[in-house]
Amino acid sequence: MLMNIKNKSYKFQFKKDDREKLVEDFANLQRKAKESGVPVIIIVDGWECSGKGFVIHDIVKEVNHKYVKVRVFGEDSDIDKAYPKLYKFWNASPEKGDIVIFDRSFYHDLMFPMDRDKFDAQIADCISIEKQLCDDGVLFLKFFLHIDRDIQKKRIKEYEKDGYKSALLSDIDYEQNKHYDKYLESISRVLKATDIDGAKWHIIPADSMKDASAEILGISISEIGKAIEKKNKGERFCPEREIELPEAKDYLGKLNYSLKLSKEEYKENKKVLLNKLQSIGYEFFKKKISAMIIFEGVDAAGKGGAIQRLTMGLDPRGYDVVPISKPTQVELNHHYLWRFWKEVPEKGRIVVFDRSWYGRVLVERIEKLATEFEWKRAYEEINTTEKALRDSGILVLKFFISIEKEEQLKRFNARKDNPEKSYKLTDEDWRNREKWDLYIEAYNDMLTFTDTKYAPWILVPGNDKYYARIKVMEETVKRAAEFLKSYKKK
Amino acid sequence: MLMNIKNKSYKFQFKKDDREKLVEDFANLQRKAKESGVPVIIIVDGWECSGKGFVIHDIVKEVNHKYVKVRVFGEDSDIDKAYPKLYKFWNASPEKGDIVIFDRSFYHDLMFPMDRDKFDAQIADCISIEKQLCDDGVLFLKFFLHIDRDIQKKRIKEYEKDGYKSALLSDIDYEQNKHYDKYLESISRVLKATDIDGAKWHIIPADSMKDASAEILGISISEIGKAIEKKNKGERFCPEREIELPEAKDYLGKLNYSLKLSKEEYKENKKVLLNKLQSIGYEFFKKKISAMIIFEGVDAAGKGGAIQRLTMGLDPRGYDVVPISKPTQVELNHHYLWRFWKEVPEKGRIVVFDRSWYGRVLVERIEKLATEFEWKRAYEEINTTEKALRDSGILVLKFFISIEKEEQLKRFNARKDNPEKSYKLTDEDWRNREKWDLYIEAYNDMLTFTDTKYAPWILVPGNDKYYARIKVMEETVKRAAEFLKSYKKK
Repeated sequence: MLMNIKNKSYKFQFKKDDREKLVEDFANLQRKAKESGVPVIIIVDGWECSGKGFVIHDIVKEVNHKYVKVRVFGEDSDIDKAYPKLYKFWNASPEKGDIVIFDRSFYHDLMFPMDRDKFDAQIADCISIEKQLCDDGVLFLKFFLHIDRDIQKKRIKEYEKDGYKSALLSDIDYEQNKHYDKYLESISRVLKATDIDGAKWHIIPADSMKDASAEILGISISEIGKAIEKKNKGERFCPEREIELPEAKDYLGKLNYSLKLSKEEYKENKKVLLNKLQSIGYEFFKKKISAMIIFEGVDAAGKGGAIQRLTMGLDPRGYDVVPISKPTQVELNHHYLWRFWKEVPEKGRIVVFDRSWYGRVLVERIEKLATEFEWKRAYEEINTTEKALRDSGILVLKFFISIEKEEQLKRFNARKDNPEKSYKLTDEDWRNREKWDLYIEAYNDMLTFTDTKYAPWILVPGNDKYYARIKVMEETVKRAAEFLKSYKKK
Repeated sequence: MLMNIKNKSYKFQFKKDDREKLVEDFANLQRKAKESGVPVIIIVDGWECSGKGFVIHDIVKEVNHKYVKVRVFGEDSDIDKAYPKLYKFWNASPEKGDIVIFDRSFYHDLMFPMDRDKFDAQIADCISIEKQLCDDGVLFLKFFLHIDRDIQKKRIKEYEKDGYKSALLSDIDYEQNKHYDKYLESISRVLKATDIDGAKWHIIPADSMKDASAEILGISISEIGKAIEKKNKGERFCPEREIELPEAKDYLGKLNYSLKLSKEEYKENKKVLLNKLQSIGYEFFKKKISAMIIFEGVDAAGKGGAIQRLTMGLDPRGYDVVPISKPTQVELNHHYLWRFWKEVPEKGRIVVFDRSWYGRVLVERIEKLATEFEWKRAYEEINTTEKALRDSGILVLKFFISIEKEEQLKRFNARKDNPEKSYKLTDEDWRNREKWDLYIEAYNDMLTFTDTKYAPWILVPGNDKYYARIKVMEETVKRAAEFLKSYKKK
């Protein structure tokens, strides 16, 4: 068991007398990390009064602050509370070459004693997130500062006598010391669960903060050094895995493209549905519930039109439409999910995504902007993300609007010939059309591997625009109402 | 007086029967606005129950949501409360070619009855901000929906009977109707004060929401159309002004560069000051007070080193260092102050800027990246910004570290010869050195025109690094302590 460590028998590899030198070495190494583009997350967690602040202070003492940030995962601020739990984590995740120091792990809240069920429900997401960043080339260095009950008690007493430090003491310090064994158990459970390949914990005895700090600096220097070397040689420091995907189902082939509505039926339905959308939108706002509505689809399938009609029913002050196009350089320097997390709705808002993270398994796959390992593992990454959003109380709706190949040609030609609409048609559209079969394969894969119970795909045959638009509104109303109902029950 | 309008005698230029057509025209025009790069802010303010939501709904009905956003300036959310007042405004300000619709003006809070003094203290900043964006080429369209007391009362009664709308009513609707005349006075005061060139108010009678909406759409289409035309012809739609600057003082020539400290004095002072910084930093955190500490200086003057020593005294979990380098393309598509506002500290945090908005009057002036009208007006823009930050309770400290020309050469050569430091020296540094005199002039101008009582410059002769670093710490401690004291008194 990870926490079954005896501080006295731990063999320190680095000496506290070398601390100053290590501080300097770390700062020099950081410059090399920047050059090589290795992103690093250093987690400094530990018991209350174990010296986390002391250690972090040493780490950042001489660094170039341009590329080293400290992010605190303690109590949630008002800003944190307005967003889903992982929002803060993603916003803190490092750009290529940057080092981010986490004051406590982002799952520190799971280190409090709690029911097994509650714990199980949350820990899997945390592990998955770390795994995702590892896979993406982020170097994780995780340290837990360990002290026993007596040392903790002694420190608390010391702090009480110190003007500055006494102010830092809070109820939790006393609580943890009082129920030390219970906390030992819950902390051990977290450390064990998150001690994964590529992101192992180092349990560092912190009877002496200087010893602990030297050790953490030393280990960090050594590990970052190795990672830079690997990176410069073009090697991965987190090994690739073989990802076996089951056979995809032919979702799109089975769609009934002949479904249609007359103009009168369309108008009638629309009117009723817009009213329903208005009340539902308002209930989301009033109850501070958020929704993410994702639109994907074949080029020219009518995503834009469907979004337009859908949002007509919503109060423009309560929603945003986020169109996704090519990533900027800053976005490319991050994990691909990073840019989407910036757009995740705060409590009570509705965000409509016109295209989304599914670009990873569509255009990026087909244009080879993502490697096979990258896009193949993305299905699971996206599933985890959507589950996490759903778990944090956000309704996730995903629409896929499809049209047949001939219908697309008809629409392209119509756009070409209409000066008001010709701007909608680019050379890229024609190039994509040449890859029709590749896209259909990618769509079916996506639909098969990411059709989950917490975020199921809603397939919409789009040959008839009236039908498609009504279908989108109808499904939104239906599913949002169900969501509100299930929400009330809780 | 602006609000002395008789709704009955107002002559509508656009008819409500054309509303649908206007909605469409607006959407088409918006595409052209994007192409031409005109950024637009449409403010829709008005009495409670005057139909703001209705109008905004029409405006966004058919637009491409990629480039049109709605931002609500009503009650502050928890996120808004964590930042200075203008943070939200700046974050909402449009990129080139985008249209942002403000639901209420960002100074809507000043429309409540309040003391003349309180009003005067805040209104000037608001006017200045609008002026700044006008100057930068943002087209302002400001609409106030006007209804009289009876109509408002009638609407409230109607809403009470409507399931959906009744939920939108709040105390303020009743309050405003009850004290209509008082509100009329306070609203008129705001409209009058902010009815400035380039950002005039249109008072639109809203007895019929459809009439009002058609009128607002019509005026917007006409104004945006004119702006696009001007922009395409390369004309400004907000005229340039002649800016007369007084003569600058020779701040830098008067510095005493011979000030120095021995290594022992340095060490001794540093120890004491770091302790003081620690307590002060903690008090800022505890009291949720923020600080912005700006560093500017001659190349190689030792900004980085001074920042490093200063931050050594601070809890790394409570501050950020923000290094300012070349703006990204997205940043260039905004007003130059935009990117700095993103970094403004939330309550309780300290942000250290390594270079800052002063780049506008330094490198951008000298390298001609800003026009004369741009950099000359920037002094006032920056003063206003710093005053607004100070007014919202943020301590603003500004350090300028200076060295003499020979000292710079010595340092450049030392950097060149030291492999550990050579990365710090670039060709650009040598090129800047050739422009020494131009820079000195720009520095003295900056120091003269932006040395204000709410954000005075702290000049630091930097020939002796020990002296400079201690001076920075000492002044920070002194001024932060004074600030805390004055804060307590409030």
